[in-house]
Amino acid sequence: MSELLELHRDRLFPSNANCRDVARRLYEDIKNLPIISPHGHTDPKWFAKNDHFRDPYALLVAPDHYLLRMLYSQGVSKTDMGIKKIHETSAGEPRAAWRTFARHQFLFRGTPSGLWLDHVFKEIFGQSRRLQESTADDYYDSIAEQLSKDEFRPRQIFDRFNIEFLSTTESAVDSLQYHKELRDSDWDGNVVTTYRPDSVIDPEHHEFKEALLQFGELSAEDVYSWDGYLRAHRKRRADFIALGATATDHGHPSAQTANLTTSDCRKLFGRVITGSATPDDAELFRAQMLTEMARMSIDDGLVMQLHPGSFRNHNAWLFDNYGSDKGADIPARMEYTNALKPLLDEFGNHPNLTVIVFTLDESTYARELAPLAGHYPCLLLGPPWWFNDSPEGILRFREQTTETAGFYNTAGFNDDTRALFSIPARHDMSRRIDCTYLARLVCEHRLSETDAHTIANDLTNMLPRCAYRIGDKA
Amino acid sequence: MSELLELHRDRLFPSNANCRDVARRLYEDIKNLPIISPHGHTDPKWFAKNDHFRDPYALLVAPDHYLLRMLYSQGVSKTDMGIKKIHETSAGEPRAAWRTFARHQFLFRGTPSGLWLDHVFKEIFGQSRRLQESTADDYYDSIAEQLSKDEFRPRQIFDRFNIEFLSTTESAVDSLQYHKELRDSDWDGNVVTTYRPDSVIDPEHHEFKEALLQFGELSAEDVYSWDGYLRAHRKRRADFIALGATATDHGHPSAQTANLTTSDCRKLFGRVITGSATPDDAELFRAQMLTEMARMSIDDGLVMQLHPGSFRNHNAWLFDNYGSDKGADIPARMEYTNALKPLLDEFGNHPNLTVIVFTLDESTYARELAPLAGHYPCLLLGPPWWFNDSPEGILRFREQTTETAGFYNTAGFNDDTRALFSIPARHDMSRRIDCTYLARLVCEHRLSETDAHTIANDLTNMLPRCAYRIGDKA
Amino acid sequence: MSELLELHRDRLFPSNANCRDVARRLYEDIKNLPIISPHGHTDPKWFAKNDHFRDPYALLVAPDHYLLRMLYSQGVSKTDMGIKKIHETSAGEPRAAWRTFARHQFLFRGTPSGLWLDHVFKEIFGQSRRLQESTADDYYDSIAEQLSKDEFRPRQIFDRFNIEFLSTTESAVDSLQYHKELRDSDWDGNVVTTYRPDSVIDPEHHEFKEALLQFGELSAEDVYSWDGYLRAHRKRRADFIALGATATDHGHPSAQTANLTTSDCRKLFGRVITGSATPDDAELFRAQMLTEMARMSIDDGLVMQLHPGSFRNHNAWLFDNYGSDKGADIPARMEYTNALKPLLDEFGNHPNLTVIVFTLDESTYARELAPLAGHYPCLLLGPPWWFNDSPEGILRFREQTTETAGFYNTAGFNDDTRALFSIPARHDMSRRIDCTYLARLVCEHRLSETDAHTIANDLTNMLPRCAYRIGDKA
Repeated sequence: MSELLELHRDRLFPSNANCRDVARRLYEDIKNLPIISPHGHTDPKWFAKNDHFRDPYALLVAPDHYLLRMLYSQGVSKTDMGIKKIHETSAGEPRAAWRTFARHQFLFRGTPSGLWLDHVFKEIFGQSRRLQESTADDYYDSIAEQLSKDEFRPRQIFDRFNIEFLSTTESAVDSLQYHKELRDSDWDGNVVTTYRPDSVIDPEHHEFKEALLQFGELSAEDVYSWDGYLRAHRKRRADFIALGATATDHGHPSAQTANLTTSDCRKLFGRVITGSATPDDAELFRAQMLTEMARMSIDDGLVMQLHPGSFRNHNAWLFDNYGSDKGADIPARMEYTNALKPLLDEFGNHPNLTVIVFTLDESTYARELAPLAGHYPCLLLGPPWWFNDSPEGILRFREQTTETAGFYNTAGFNDDTRALFSIPARHDMSRRIDCTYLARLVCEHRLSETDAHTIANDLTNMLPRCAYRIGDKA
Repeated sequence: MSELLELHRDRLFPSNANCRDVARRLYEDIKNLPIISPHGHTDPKWFAKNDHFRDPYALLVAPDHYLLRMLYSQGVSKTDMGIKKIHETSAGEPRAAWRTFARHQFLFRGTPSGLWLDHVFKEIFGQSRRLQESTADDYYDSIAEQLSKDEFRPRQIFDRFNIEFLSTTESAVDSLQYHKELRDSDWDGNVVTTYRPDSVIDPEHHEFKEALLQFGELSAEDVYSWDGYLRAHRKRRADFIALGATATDHGHPSAQTANLTTSDCRKLFGRVITGSATPDDAELFRAQMLTEMARMSIDDGLVMQLHPGSFRNHNAWLFDNYGSDKGADIPARMEYTNALKPLLDEFGNHPNLTVIVFTLDESTYARELAPLAGHYPCLLLGPPWWFNDSPEGILRFREQTTETAGFYNTAGFNDDTRALFSIPARHDMSRRIDCTYLARLVCEHRLSETDAHTIANDLTNMLPRCAYRIGDKA
Repeated sequence: MSELLELHRDRLFPSNANCRDVARRLYEDIKNLPIISPHGHTDPKWFAKNDHFRDPYALLVAPDHYLLRMLYSQGVSKTDMGIKKIHETSAGEPRAAWRTFARHQFLFRGTPSGLWLDHVFKEIFGQSRRLQESTADDYYDSIAEQLSKDEFRPRQIFDRFNIEFLSTTESAVDSLQYHKELRDSDWDGNVVTTYRPDSVIDPEHHEFKEALLQFGELSAEDVYSWDGYLRAHRKRRADFIALGATATDHGHPSAQTANLTTSDCRKLFGRVITGSATPDDAELFRAQMLTEMARMSIDDGLVMQLHPGSFRNHNAWLFDNYGSDKGADIPARMEYTNALKPLLDEFGNHPNLTVIVFTLDESTYARELAPLAGHYPCLLLGPPWWFNDSPEGILRFREQTTETAGFYNTAGFNDDTRALFSIPARHDMSRRIDCTYLARLVCEHRLSETDAHTIANDLTNMLPRCAYRIGDKA
């Protein structure tokens, strides 16, 4: 028989009794605070339409690249995962894929995915035994049955999760249809968009050419002239702001910035739109555009998020056959001290600029990012990103940044997920680990417990709110 | 009088009582499991001939570059270490060198070498006081006397250590004489070879030219043509497989791979054999050969081990005067995400390929290696290597890789040693630290104790066995 | 009312009771040992003149770039910090700046600055409540009043702090006036200088041209010829040695060394003095000069300190308006294995050379620096530098270097500060964290408590004394 599924009240707290007690007290204070989720990838259509979710597998597994990558690494085929090839019309039978998933639960031992799944299964779907082959069908049926209930519809889930602010991410060429529907609806959930212009900024993006065309249409600007192209960005940013956006997001291969003369910008842009840009030109164009985005942010107030260093679609065969977001993005080494200097030389001391910097290269935490954020008024440290959004990863982030940047140059937590049902699990993990870190400081007499309570609250509420310029819903 | 030499039953376990108790229970379960040693550098002649070891210094100190380097760093001359110069016919008096070694034991405080030595002295040679100047002669005499006994001969030691599988490493141009003798002997110890072709693959290897000549002779192929050279590899791999090899090993300066056209391969090989290869050519040739080795591995089933990033013989004067393997290899920064892509693009999704990747650059654990191994079916993470094969090093490895790659994309432990008598000490340290890590997960309610027991067993037995495709001895 | 200001007796010790007790015993043994401060930036004028300090803000805040950077990162203007612009004749009112500083104390929560400030306020100035807006004026008045007393004059403070050896750092073109006055005074405090030739070695230094002129005048050599330039270094080094110097210090952008022929040195120097040096030439010249400094060190016995990897004055606007040392230096990624090889090939095995290497890039600790220092007789690891001179930073240093380099290839602690009153706080923190690390090794049975006591003493006294060749004051 399957083991009992239990969430221990002290999970993720220090095992030392004194520290655990401090962590408990800190956590007690913040565990019920509303969720602020200023960076994520849920689908605005869910909230606009509020249709029932149907298939447990399509909801909980298929969109989660953490899960897919782990199965794939152990030789489970995409077919057995129920993932369809590009141009295939139907994927496999979801119940069979669910069984495959259940059979491989051992792979998630010791991983954050394992902890998140347990949280979702227990807290949201009330399962009492652990998922494994023998419980796979029971799980599937039970979850499917619950999803058919009204209280499992997206808006009801949003309310049940006590989400106060949720940001999705849309391409610069998105119609924003669902966000418009949300604005016009009578639902009061605070779901906003984020401006993500990678596909019209990165000449090497596989959709660049097509996206640029749409960009011109949506903005009614001549996006093939440098001035028109910049005006198009300003217009679209205004469209996003009108639908609640407080931030932009930039997923570049590197953190390189540039500050060219207007004349050089025009020449470079000329090469970009005629398709004659070299890889160095492409890098320089992305670099220049970060500085242009900063300039616009100073004007329109959008907070910039910089997410560099992911080698997207590293597995060529997988990308050709199954497309992107299948768990084959791989981090690469990053550099910030030199890369950010051109932008910082231009705008680094400007009071109206906020740039939240993320990294996948933890060796930059103590060496570059904490010193930069601990000096420049415009810079904040984004929370641990992607793989580092984990118990050890969050602890390392705090241990390696706090002494130099303090707590107040950080930006709270991001769940960064398209897995809606895992949002409370992810925020809970982050809150628990922050409490664990603070408890350690308290028990080593490096921080008073009074201050620790203040900080725990600030990390959960005030800091993300300030970093992302989130006001109260009008 | 010298302090007592004691091995505490709880050594390397967490000092917190709860965690320590869990670690004890996990360790109790695995401490007596047989040793699987799939990567090391012991001498097959020992087992083939089964002669007595004689000199304690030559057995325990002289071949251990960890010990030599530490003494040298504090100004002890190679002469005082009893190491002879190239072309010198005799080294110093071993007893004098042993005394020097004893006098410098303080240098090993807090190091894994110190812990391994204590284990060897206490468990294998039954010493009751710590080694220092005043006990040096007693140690020397006592160990020499024990070595003269039959039960200290290599095969008896192998059995006493409960070694189930031991792999040595031989050059592609080794005659494999001792492995043949082992095959033909009536001894049932499972000692196999590993195919290490660096000297015939690396145009910058100081023995490349000579090795290539031997390679041609041993394989009876024209190794100065590209096709013949590749056939020679296939033949020699078959020779190694016939003597039990399940793996190859590649000690390249970088992890760079390449995937050239056959025509470009021929041209590059032409420059290599005519001695006109530039350093870039040499790097490209090594890179291409990793992909060729992968192609052959898919055919013949040998597991690839990639050990990149050691700057060999960094100390020029020392190399010129005393030769290699004297503790002067120094790690360098590594990159994997881009470097491995050409090979992975060609074979990364092939079900019959296993590549075990090692690193000396811990900053790549979380950033590159765990994400790569947590996605590609062919990739496994090798255990912490060389300097990182230590209590802190093993903990960092688990802390930085488990959350992304899990336990099941790792390959168990390697002792990687030529110090035969330290093998149990090294495996014991690794088992204890794995239990410490698992106990921490259990006590922080991130893993059930039931799962922790399964994992502790898998890390010790199943994972190295699967990773290295080790069957039961026929 | 403000919280009580308390320094817990167990601060920075492990929270686990067993480990804490060991740490207490180790600390008890070393807490009162004299301070050896072989690398710092206090002003020799203080000790030469022994004038009263006056303004609490100018003493405790304004010269501390750790404090300034943190305030600046949160949008406090330099004006509000009471820092004057270049060419401005007066800064703001110090009491107002003190109040700003007091209001922002929350920024230092969890930082070493916060802990150092508490120590200074409590132990030296006897404050009983924490600094915050409501206590700002009381603090200011109380400290100002105490500073007016004789026992708060520099020499009295030096004695009160139990400083046995203090090194300041002077430029190669410093007149050394105050050190001469100190030598000729009847005060017996051991305050010496350190030879810091960056401004005459780095062609890209903003004062290079002017410094070279002064260098010629002070040395009475033709510093525009290669031979005269080298003689000038030898003469000035002798001047520094005559005033107690035991070390040189080199703050290069990278750790690159070179070993050119004399003929190539002359050509390179020609380009340097005629202003035609490219950036690559400048790098090569700095690299060659490290090797020249090593050659001179072998002759005159000065210990070399290499502090590479700081991007100085990263904030262009701030540098233009407020000058250097305002908290805008940012670390960059470093490389040592290849960079140090030319120097090590020439002098790495010489018995009279000591090079103490520092880093701002912790990823080099385990990968490059510990292996290098654990092999080369001339190399020692400098203590954690700058941002890493912190509880977590010191722990990481020990955890990542001890297993490979041991304790005896390290050089004790540096406070590296111009904040005189924080010196005891910084040494106390370092001693406590070393005890914490040692206690962990003891409690995990990796080290005997007897050995831990010896090591704690050696780290505090013997190691810095040996590393810096500090004798007893004549």
